[in-house]
Amino acid sequence: MSTVVKHIRAARKAHLAQFSELLSIPSVSTDSRHAKDVRRAGDWVRRKLKQAGCTRVELHDTPRHPIVYGEWLGASGAPTILVYGHYDVQPVDPLELWDHAPFDPLVKNGRIYARGASDNKGQFLAHVNAFESHMRDNGSCPVNIKFLIEGEEEIGSPNLDSFIAENRKRLACDAVVVSDTAMFGAGIPSICYGLRGLAYLEIHVRGTDRDLHSGTFGGSVINPANALVEMLAALKNNRGRVSVPGFYDKVRRLRPAERRAFAALPHSDRRWKREVGAPQLYGEAGYSTLERIWARPTLDVNGIWGGFTGEGAKTVIPAEASAKISMRLVPDQRPKEIARKVTAHLKRIAPLSVKVTVRELHGGDAWITPTDHPAMQAAARALRRAFGRKAVMVREGGSIPIVAEFERRLKVPTVLMGLGLNDDNLHAPNEKMELNNFYRGIEASAFLMEELGNAGGDGRGSRATERR
Amino acid sequence: MSTVVKHIRAARKAHLAQFSELLSIPSVSTDSRHAKDVRRAGDWVRRKLKQAGCTRVELHDTPRHPIVYGEWLGASGAPTILVYGHYDVQPVDPLELWDHAPFDPLVKNGRIYARGASDNKGQFLAHVNAFESHMRDNGSCPVNIKFLIEGEEEIGSPNLDSFIAENRKRLACDAVVVSDTAMFGAGIPSICYGLRGLAYLEIHVRGTDRDLHSGTFGGSVINPANALVEMLAALKNNRGRVSVPGFYDKVRRLRPAERRAFAALPHSDRRWKREVGAPQLYGEAGYSTLERIWARPTLDVNGIWGGFTGEGAKTVIPAEASAKISMRLVPDQRPKEIARKVTAHLKRIAPLSVKVTVRELHGGDAWITPTDHPAMQAAARALRRAFGRKAVMVREGGSIPIVAEFERRLKVPTVLMGLGLNDDNLHAPNEKMELNNFYRGIEASAFLMEELGNAGGDGRGSRATERR
Repeated sequence: MSTVVKHIRAARKAHLAQFSELLSIPSVSTDSRHAKDVRRAGDWVRRKLKQAGCTRVELHDTPRHPIVYGEWLGASGAPTILVYGHYDVQPVDPLELWDHAPFDPLVKNGRIYARGASDNKGQFLAHVNAFESHMRDNGSCPVNIKFLIEGEEEIGSPNLDSFIAENRKRLACDAVVVSDTAMFGAGIPSICYGLRGLAYLEIHVRGTDRDLHSGTFGGSVINPANALVEMLAALKNNRGRVSVPGFYDKVRRLRPAERRAFAALPHSDRRWKREVGAPQLYGEAGYSTLERIWARPTLDVNGIWGGFTGEGAKTVIPAEASAKISMRLVPDQRPKEIARKVTAHLKRIAPLSVKVTVRELHGGDAWITPTDHPAMQAAARALRRAFGRKAVMVREGGSIPIVAEFERRLKVPTVLMGLGLNDDNLHAPNEKMELNNFYRGIEASAFLMEELGNAGGDGRGSRATERR
Repeated sequence: MSTVVKHIRAARKAHLAQFSELLSIPSVSTDSRHAKDVRRAGDWVRRKLKQAGCTRVELHDTPRHPIVYGEWLGASGAPTILVYGHYDVQPVDPLELWDHAPFDPLVKNGRIYARGASDNKGQFLAHVNAFESHMRDNGSCPVNIKFLIEGEEEIGSPNLDSFIAENRKRLACDAVVVSDTAMFGAGIPSICYGLRGLAYLEIHVRGTDRDLHSGTFGGSVINPANALVEMLAALKNNRGRVSVPGFYDKVRRLRPAERRAFAALPHSDRRWKREVGAPQLYGEAGYSTLERIWARPTLDVNGIWGGFTGEGAKTVIPAEASAKISMRLVPDQRPKEIARKVTAHLKRIAPLSVKVTVRELHGGDAWITPTDHPAMQAAARALRRAFGRKAVMVREGGSIPIVAEFERRLKVPTVLMGLGLNDDNLHAPNEKMELNNFYRGIEASAFLMEELGNAGGDGRGSRATERR
């Protein structure tokens, strides 16, 4: 066993205590009432990077929540990796469905329960802890390292692109490493080579200028809630396909080899159904579950509201009804183009007697990368060493818009080595992270640094850079 | 001018002060947090009836909100009228759209603004004040009078039917008088001879057993919010008609004479459009606005909710989505039958992968009565005397389920002499009542008592009773 692993195993208690401390800060980025908490979490990360051994650490202010940057560049001649993560978290509602307070971390049955545990505090901390362990063990790290930990991922990273664009030199690296995805299953280390993109819209449909009595006026005026449900229903057909003209135009078709690779993975629809607690699965006709979530676009109503929603019956025709919808996108769909097409379609199918406004809340490109890149292969070896099992190559249904940005801005590959599980309850009540994945993740990250450092020593690191 | 009118005009200040006092009690019957306020309002009515001259006054407890009963039977040989009204009110939300506090009555420009002003506190008080004025003026009233003022009208009067059934003898009368409808227009006294019924449902659609991340799972499971909008959209077609099989089976067709009578009323679509603040009117193809609201059934989404509805974007597939819908019914549709058909249709069209529950919140029969009944004609004369203009015979789109109950249980006609206006903002922010209608309404009620009392004196009252 390498000495760094001994060091990592000896530090588990300290790593867990620090993880808990960060989880106790309610850094909900979408909610302006939590702005100070988000900043507090950013400051915690800044101090942690300093403590871990970064020689230059900065809290970079943005119009909303700060970006934390830290670097250690003492591995002369070795490659440089950029670790990206985010310290902000999703809202906690519906709070009443949590079994405990979401910002009072609970360790139970080998898991830690708290909002942000898996998404993304535990996952980026694994890399910080790996770096720190190398530094404590050796006084140095096998690779040069840069940390970019933002506080706005859950609101679409509105200020990260410009930060990257303005700091391309400082962020220059040979590979980006991100842990913000799920392992294919418990105990199956995984590398993700494809992500879906996102286009998120908020729709308001207004009928009259005030709420009306449904008896006095019902039948003579449009009901915007009826109009809204009709418009939303018209966005999909009964085969689970999106009916917006041109929606599928740019969708890259699945290659037969990829379909075969998906089919070879140990996926079970029965288990999937049990995991989500649904009586049956449902999706676009003609595709398997993995194909549906990894390689096909979606259209989901994420929220809908209007009229009287309290206890009892109120006979009202609401003046307005609203919805939030989002489309998960696949290569080569572009979020702006999809948002434009869906908006135009909604306006086209709206009854003349309502006023429709559509606001684009956020969007991000889908992403796909070759699996044979040296950095990907180094990550596969590191994961195998840490988890004792061959890593599988997977795609993921979620979106990490920044990954496509890294590719565009920094011209380097991104290695997505997820440490979460699909049942981690991301964006839902009772979010948790498996402590085994947290601890093994630290080891995997430390091994990756070794693997890439060794590669750098014998010149493979520079080949990796030249390759792009 | 009769002495009672002098008395009524002299008492305007006192009548307004008492009206304000009652309006300041937030008697929202649907909201259990207001249960004590509802009771307080009931108690206020009890004291008022006593003070007005009723000899027997009772607060009758029910499982929820009390029924107030009062009577004065000193007009030997004269007919008996039963005045029905309700002291409970609708909820006030959205509160932020009110220009003032809804339970702090504001008198401005000849109107009184408060929740419940027109629906129904001002309207039933007009009759109490008329009775009191006769008593103060004469020491007696031209007719025997019974008051039945409930506190559960806005939640579907769940305890009134049984009260009427158990008290048929005590409630025996020659005619029921109700002011809970609107005048056809400002200054146009109106008698309503038809009302729509109501069937009100609450629908819950459940997909998975918890909220899911729309990236990780989107495309592979049903989204209950998408399912709900599809199901609701499928309830109507694009000609404004309800698509539920059998929905129109029992609808009584409009007679040509009635369509002509509707067309002769001083209605203007342009004014109606301005009144509701809509860019265009909308309704069932082939019918005029008055036909649509008076004689055709509807299906409206009254409330809808599910998923994330806060600030910003949350990429969630909600576990559940819900809606409140209601159907306004016309003769001879029956609420139970319609509720059953709509429920069955919803379950039939629901995707297999969701669980649908439908709860019937309340219902009431539609009602229609002949316009040539002596009590109707007496009311027409009384209104003409009070307002100085011939009363028009109208129908109304709203529901007063109890009117059909009175007909069934007491075998007497109901005279609907509305004192409200369509722009009174019933069930909406900034509810108001025109003070002129309140004051003239007191006079009209006093005249109706005279007209019926005279009729009783020469035997026409008993004919009215025999007629049924």
